[in-house]
Amino acid sequence: MRKRVGIVGFGGYSGAELVRLLVHHPHVEPVLLEHRADSSARPVPLGQAGPARIPCTADAVKAEDLAVVFLATPADVSMELAPAMLSANARVVDLSGAFRFADEATYTRWYREQHTATHLLPQAVYGLPEVCRRNIAAAQLVANPGCYPTAANLAIRPLVQAGVIDRSAGIVCDAKSGVSGAGRKPSVTTSFCEVTDNFSAYSVLDHRHVPEILNISGLEEAELSFTAQLIPIARGILETIYFRTRNVRDIQTLFDVYTQEYSHEPFIRLYPAGVFPDIQSVAGANFCDIGVKFDAPTGRAVVVSAIDNLVKGAAGQAVQNMNLMLDFAETEGLL
Amino acid sequence: MRKRVGIVGFGGYSGAELVRLLVHHPHVEPVLLEHRADSSARPVPLGQAGPARIPCTADAVKAEDLAVVFLATPADVSMELAPAMLSANARVVDLSGAFRFADEATYTRWYREQHTATHLLPQAVYGLPEVCRRNIAAAQLVANPGCYPTAANLAIRPLVQAGVIDRSAGIVCDAKSGVSGAGRKPSVTTSFCEVTDNFSAYSVLDHRHVPEILNISGLEEAELSFTAQLIPIARGILETIYFRTRNVRDIQTLFDVYTQEYSHEPFIRLYPAGVFPDIQSVAGANFCDIGVKFDAPTGRAVVVSAIDNLVKGAAGQAVQNMNLMLDFAETEGLL
Amino acid sequence: MRKRVGIVGFGGYSGAELVRLLVHHPHVEPVLLEHRADSSARPVPLGQAGPARIPCTADAVKAEDLAVVFLATPADVSMELAPAMLSANARVVDLSGAFRFADEATYTRWYREQHTATHLLPQAVYGLPEVCRRNIAAAQLVANPGCYPTAANLAIRPLVQAGVIDRSAGIVCDAKSGVSGAGRKPSVTTSFCEVTDNFSAYSVLDHRHVPEILNISGLEEAELSFTAQLIPIARGILETIYFRTRNVRDIQTLFDVYTQEYSHEPFIRLYPAGVFPDIQSVAGANFCDIGVKFDAPTGRAVVVSAIDNLVKGAAGQAVQNMNLMLDFAETEGLL
Amino acid sequence: MRKRVGIVGFGGYSGAELVRLLVHHPHVEPVLLEHRADSSARPVPLGQAGPARIPCTADAVKAEDLAVVFLATPADVSMELAPAMLSANARVVDLSGAFRFADEATYTRWYREQHTATHLLPQAVYGLPEVCRRNIAAAQLVANPGCYPTAANLAIRPLVQAGVIDRSAGIVCDAKSGVSGAGRKPSVTTSFCEVTDNFSAYSVLDHRHVPEILNISGLEEAELSFTAQLIPIARGILETIYFRTRNVRDIQTLFDVYTQEYSHEPFIRLYPAGVFPDIQSVAGANFCDIGVKFDAPTGRAVVVSAIDNLVKGAAGQAVQNMNLMLDFAETEGLL
Repeated sequence: MRKRVGIVGFGGYSGAELVRLLVHHPHVEPVLLEHRADSSARPVPLGQAGPARIPCTADAVKAEDLAVVFLATPADVSMELAPAMLSANARVVDLSGAFRFADEATYTRWYREQHTATHLLPQAVYGLPEVCRRNIAAAQLVANPGCYPTAANLAIRPLVQAGVIDRSAGIVCDAKSGVSGAGRKPSVTTSFCEVTDNFSAYSVLDHRHVPEILNISGLEEAELSFTAQLIPIARGILETIYFRTRNVRDIQTLFDVYTQEYSHEPFIRLYPAGVFPDIQSVAGANFCDIGVKFDAPTGRAVVVSAIDNLVKGAAGQAVQNMNLMLDFAETEGLL
Repeated sequence: MRKRVGIVGFGGYSGAELVRLLVHHPHVEPVLLEHRADSSARPVPLGQAGPARIPCTADAVKAEDLAVVFLATPADVSMELAPAMLSANARVVDLSGAFRFADEATYTRWYREQHTATHLLPQAVYGLPEVCRRNIAAAQLVANPGCYPTAANLAIRPLVQAGVIDRSAGIVCDAKSGVSGAGRKPSVTTSFCEVTDNFSAYSVLDHRHVPEILNISGLEEAELSFTAQLIPIARGILETIYFRTRNVRDIQTLFDVYTQEYSHEPFIRLYPAGVFPDIQSVAGANFCDIGVKFDAPTGRAVVVSAIDNLVKGAAGQAVQNMNLMLDFAETEGLL
Repeated sequence: MRKRVGIVGFGGYSGAELVRLLVHHPHVEPVLLEHRADSSARPVPLGQAGPARIPCTADAVKAEDLAVVFLATPADVSMELAPAMLSANARVVDLSGAFRFADEATYTRWYREQHTATHLLPQAVYGLPEVCRRNIAAAQLVANPGCYPTAANLAIRPLVQAGVIDRSAGIVCDAKSGVSGAGRKPSVTTSFCEVTDNFSAYSVLDHRHVPEILNISGLEEAELSFTAQLIPIARGILETIYFRTRNVRDIQTLFDVYTQEYSHEPFIRLYPAGVFPDIQSVAGANFCDIGVKFDAPTGRAVVVSAIDNLVKGAAGQAVQNMNLMLDFAETEGLL
Repeated sequence: MRKRVGIVGFGGYSGAELVRLLVHHPHVEPVLLEHRADSSARPVPLGQAGPARIPCTADAVKAEDLAVVFLATPADVSMELAPAMLSANARVVDLSGAFRFADEATYTRWYREQHTATHLLPQAVYGLPEVCRRNIAAAQLVANPGCYPTAANLAIRPLVQAGVIDRSAGIVCDAKSGVSGAGRKPSVTTSFCEVTDNFSAYSVLDHRHVPEILNISGLEEAELSFTAQLIPIARGILETIYFRTRNVRDIQTLFDVYTQEYSHEPFIRLYPAGVFPDIQSVAGANFCDIGVKFDAPTGRAVVVSAIDNLVKGAAGQAVQNMNLMLDFAETEGLL
């Protein structure tokens, strides 16, 4: 029997991607939770009702016996809804930044707003399965990682742990994202004519995803230079990561670091020397793809990390977390 | 000595294009008229003040002795501002639909809103220079044509006048436009992720530009089937026009119709048989480019008409009108 | 036990899409048939071998006992390979134009080249399941329809059969396609800088897909005006179809025509009055989506038809045909 | 009287941009030099002959008395043509990489091909006006800089000279370019479907533009990590440059470095703190725009540098060089 799961924010890009994935998932039945009026909907064919819709209230969620509720909502809405959903016995996967930090101070510093559900912070588990798999399985509240940090941490963390980065010289993560990362709410910044034929940097050195990268990768703030940039495409993230190596003789040393860490990971793929993933490599898929360059004479290295921001960077990773929580195969509905 | 001219709505796409053209115009000096707060501005380098800015009031316009004021504003704002600008002795080129019809009824039927400046309708002159050149030169208030009608009328009108269309079979104008035609105000419809990788029809058979096409081309409503469609590009219009011919022996007959009409027109360009303009042909330029196909065995014909919606479809044509009004060479600042 | 099926031309866009669909198909196992060297391949992760590869010879196909071979190849290659594949007891689904016409003359007129496998024309079955379902199931050689004709015929044929088109006035099919329709072979015409920020018409009134539309829709050549146009997107076709109606009182009459024809069709979706499919509606899916506009006062109508040119217009429809041929559920691997 | 200047390679993107700029230049008359058959031309309206065309031979160039010949050609063609053009008393601006290095060894190492006109290397002048203005004015042969190095050197060189970079930590230049930088010759890599919805890294740490950056900026090879990346746009370059500072107290120190160097430069624009140029800032213009970020607590800095690769990165800079060589105002035809 399929378990029922709810989606709040199904009209947004991450929410719609969740629906797309969950309607094909063999073990769950998605239900749409109507929270606020959706902005202008896309055309729908006759007779294509899609999943059932119910109000987004604790009573309705309880009555429907939802096993998991996904919050594909802004952080302030997630802080408002998470307690209600948990009180209705649903486990929660939150796609916003609301529950990604153990301490309130980090949130208020980087998000520049109050945290209104601090009592939930102690129980929230960071939902990066490759790092926190066991805790996720048992969690009531999972904080799905940010898109940029997912691509960054999966590439950087093993290198830090293996001690192959010369941290004294710092590490640069030059990140580029498609526009869906900014959500579906209309703004001049994400309107077609401003984005097309363009490429722009924003949040230079002060993006709010930085603390997530520090927490998981193990880098210090002064060591990491991170810049976010907008590509004129709908979806996809590519991050180009520069560092100087320590104790690295040849590229095989770096390959070994990754294969040791990821040889059993279904969603991490490594590329041969001289070949790099691009965004089309991961479009629509839950993979994080990694390519490596090493310049032996100078010891410099570059790692290219690519994900689909709406899949491994949001909805796909949320389903991966749900699979762990509900004890399904981790790849169910994702390959 | 340069004449001073004002631009209201310089933050929008047509307004910004006007500024771009006018700062290079040898005989005028543009002044920005601040009407309402601009939505999020683009980055500006240090020390690039651009043209002077004054408030958009009758007093200021009078004090600055502006010869012409361009209203690159929505119709309701144009109806509000046009009387004030005229009272300040400025001549007005309005880029909205407010003053394009002699009768109020046509406006209210197609624009579905009240007309609040009907007293100006009798004096407004339709600003399509290739057709109304003389009246424009003497006008106080010029209604700059819509973008779709400009491309349609320049292609269709000579054919109707020459009697080479079998009007009993109707004429189809399948129109496609870049997104800047919808203006800079943010909306889901014009946001990047909705437009990219997409192509969509809207206002099928009931676009509000239809009456402009009927007025100038001489077609009847039942004869013209017009559909507007959105191309994932910022600027440009291409219209594919289908009709059955009357009294046409070969393609030369159709070429003759156009060359007779347009041999002295600086902004209309005809393409050789078998060659059609595309949108890159006219990007950034004030041209209307026309290509013709004739199938002799069946008498069917297709005309392809292309303009840049922000230039010949808006700001360029507005400058062309200003040139006529101020007795400059018609092509000044446009070639 | 899964049946093995082969793909020739897997490096092209339609071939790659076939592989994408077939690796997820529950009842078949795809094998790549290497015919000619692939042009520059996309990056491939370590350890992602993909489906097995064998030479594209009759012997190899026989040895591997391939039930079906897909030819995602140019027409001249298909004419060369189809006889060999059939002789190896494989049934063939050909995605080129080689076998779409019963008579050689139509092919040579529109494709402007010799037909070198005319002996196969009598047995070839046109692979539009919604029209030719029964013949497809029994066919040894299926000619998968062209992309433009698929969208056109599914929209036009029911109208012609129901007699609701005033054919004396002609019918216009203004067709737009993404660039993948032109294949992966590099050319200036399909290079990025020529296509982006552009929109262009080609094969105006003389596209080689016209005879396919005439054959299936039942229209005469003089009645149909068809123009192909290039949209700056990778995939998707939208066709805007204009006609004058006969015996149509209101839009319901037109809806009835479609629902009578298609009520049991899994891949055809109708849109409510006032709503039209766009290309994002069908991206990646095997649907043909249809929207209808009727203007009662004048009797004019417009139908908008949208498909993904690589799915319903190529690989998806080929899988649908294979499902019929191998007696699987018609939607297997496609929903 | 206008001086006549010739363009070889006018069918390519840089060559076409040169023609676009030169036909509006008040002091020169462009002539097209036909060297090899142009690949598929764009549609041309009737009667738009454009500039005169003559064969690209020393005799023709001499007979026409061309003052300057622009070589918008691949390096091997430039090495073949430059001696002939110089022998015809034309001064040469070469847009390829052929003459950018004083020593043959650098060329053969990075371009991986023979140099066939080494005798010209001693007289070639590097054409970056902001650095080599005086030598350019007197040069017979100017090597127009590469696109990436132009954006990089204008941003980095003043910082190196002022000693504000902690060079021991290295400097990262993450460069992104539109597709026209790869030229107009068709290839899978630059075809629409491969570039759209994509973003990819290439020549990671070993791009052949690296030695130009080292030469002019004053950095050592081990200090600079440079990666080139492809944006799905036609034109524009944005480079994000990361470094650790030395002796920098606040952002004003960095602003001072640039204003001291560039206060009189007409084509370099600085942005206020917190504001960064994007690619639309420089599209179609000869500017190099620079934005600066400084993080005081950690001493890290980021500089964003943007140019139009076809203008300041190719044709515009070539015209700027021509202006210096022919003693015109340096900005003539470029503002």
